Amino acid sequence: MSKGEMVYEGKAKRMFLTDDPGRLVVEYKDSLTAFNAQKVASMEGKGRLNNVISSVIFQYLKDRGVDNHFVRVIDDTHQEVLRVTILPIEVVVRNITAGSICKRLGVKEGLPLPRPLVELYYKDDALGDPIITEDHAVLFGWATQEELDQVKSMALKVNQLLGEMFEQVGVTLVDFKLEFGRTKDGRIILADEISPDTCRLWDKATNDRLDKDRFRNDLGRVLEAYEEIWKRLSEPKEA
Amino acid sequence: MSKGEMVYEGKAKRMFLTDDPGRLVVEYKDSLTAFNAQKVASMEGKGRLNNVISSVIFQYLKDRGVDNHFVRVIDDTHQEVLRVTILPIEVVVRNITAGSICKRLGVKEGLPLPRPLVELYYKDDALGDPIITEDHAVLFGWATQEELDQVKSMALKVNQLLGEMFEQVGVTLVDFKLEFGRTKDGRIILADEISPDTCRLWDKATNDRLDKDRFRNDLGRVLEAYEEIWKRLSEPKEA
Ligand SMILES: Nc1ncnc2c1ncn2[C@@H]1O[C@H](COP(=O)(O)OP(=O)(O)OP(=O)(O)O)[C@@H](O)[C@H]1O
Ligand SMILES: Nc1ncnc2c1ncn2[C@@H]1O[C@H](COP(=O)(O)OP(=O)(O)OP(=O)(O)O)[C@@H](O)[C@H]1O
Ligand SMILES: [Mg+2]
Ligand SMILES: [Mg+2]
Repeated sequence: MSKGEMVYEGKAKRMFLTDDPGRLVVEYKDSLTAFNAQKVASMEGKGRLNNVISSVIFQYLKDRGVDNHFVRVIDDTHQEVLRVTILPIEVVVRNITAGSICKRLGVKEGLPLPRPLVELYYKDDALGDPIITEDHAVLFGWATQEELDQVKSMALKVNQLLGEMFEQVGVTLVDFKLEFGRTKDGRIILADEISPDTCRLWDKATNDRLDKDRFRNDLGRVLEAYEEIWKRLSEPKEA
Repeated sequence: MSKGEMVYEGKAKRMFLTDDPGRLVVEYKDSLTAFNAQKVASMEGKGRLNNVISSVIFQYLKDRGVDNHFVRVIDDTHQEVLRVTILPIEVVVRNITAGSICKRLGVKEGLPLPRPLVELYYKDDALGDPIITEDHAVLFGWATQEELDQVKSMALKVNQLLGEMFEQVGVTLVDFKLEFGRTKDGRIILADEISPDTCRLWDKATNDRLDKDRFRNDLGRVLEAYEEIWKRLSEPKEA
């Protein structure tokens, strides 16, 4: 698998063509951004950690029936994935209130929700990724209702599975962001990444933040938190 | 019906107690505000026009089965209404793109939607009336799912009826905002006002704005537009 021409450079990853038109190589970068890229930093080792964390999570989800883009880890900062057309929609699942929902709706942080909340955001940096309803997505042609139904049910299944995975290692899954894509044959699969960059993860015992909020809110020990997540996910578990 | 103690002074209206605890007197003011009250003006005669326009519309809707708060016109600027507990949700129905949806989602103004779009906003001036989904409303206790189902179906019925009413007088109903309230016995009824302050109304022939956008966008002839709407709605129609 050769690393060909770069097709996209984002804030956290670079995507490269390969000799297979159906696959991409992803390179995880060390850069860290927040607040729609108004806050930027670089942390050596972050790319490597997100690469392995996301790989382990996608493999876990694939083994449990969540169709996704992950193929294999190539090396420390590279993985091979299926190339898809990303839906212009970010899917957020929340179990506990935190972050933007608190600011936007004036609700307290840390409220457990009686059931998981799925939110959709229109993926457009220039517009600041505005929140949308399913009707907006369908009316403006960003996804069909059938695709949204599938996306929502997959998002809830991911929430269930991820919640269990993190629970077992003493971490509360507060919320997370997913991206989905269409394959050539029209299937919807989970894509992009799942990592401390895209989840809120709180230590169950101490409520310590083990995610990008350490960077957003200048809490310090950012890389240490990502390492802690990797350590817990990669430790052998008792049977 | 005596005009008792004032219970609420808003940007456009004052609400007064009466000798009947189930009823209020509404006074329509001449003040005009936009952009969450950052832009303010007063226009002599605006209160009278909105009072009569809203009264005629609420009577028309009541006659066609849309349960609402309107009781009767008292005089130029006063009407009697049923007192309700307003749901903290503004319901917007859109037939053609205009205003905030264009800014928020980067869509062009004037696009006819393939079907009417119902949007919900959390009624909180300090938060800038953020857009919400039905899940937010239910999870944070602002309305039950049953109430939302009723609110949506009433909003679509109002859209149908209002669209016909305005169509007959050469006006395109682009979008509008509704408020709903709970009566003592738990019914949901339409409340507040429907007027050029709360609708986008375009002349069918010329696309001239006949609503508060004349004020928002400094187009001039604001009162004349409100008068034109009143003239058309109050003219006798051929059978
Ligand atoms: N399997 C895939 N096939 C094609 N594109 C993908 C796939 N997985 C993720 N992507 C896209 O590749 C890019 C990854 O880069 P990165 O996460 O750095 O982007 P970003 O800075 O977050 O910007 P964006 O707003 O585009 O997500 C994203 O645009 C993502 O949607
Ligand atoms: N039938 C009713 N019973 C009780 N309250 C009502 C009724 N109809 C409307 N209201 C409320 O009375 C107030 C009318 O005042 P106005 O329209 O000037 O308010 P506003 O400045 O728009 O502020 P806001 O709507 O944000 O409270 C609104 O709060 C409205 O929700
Ligand atoms: Mg990204
Ligand atoms: Mg009002």
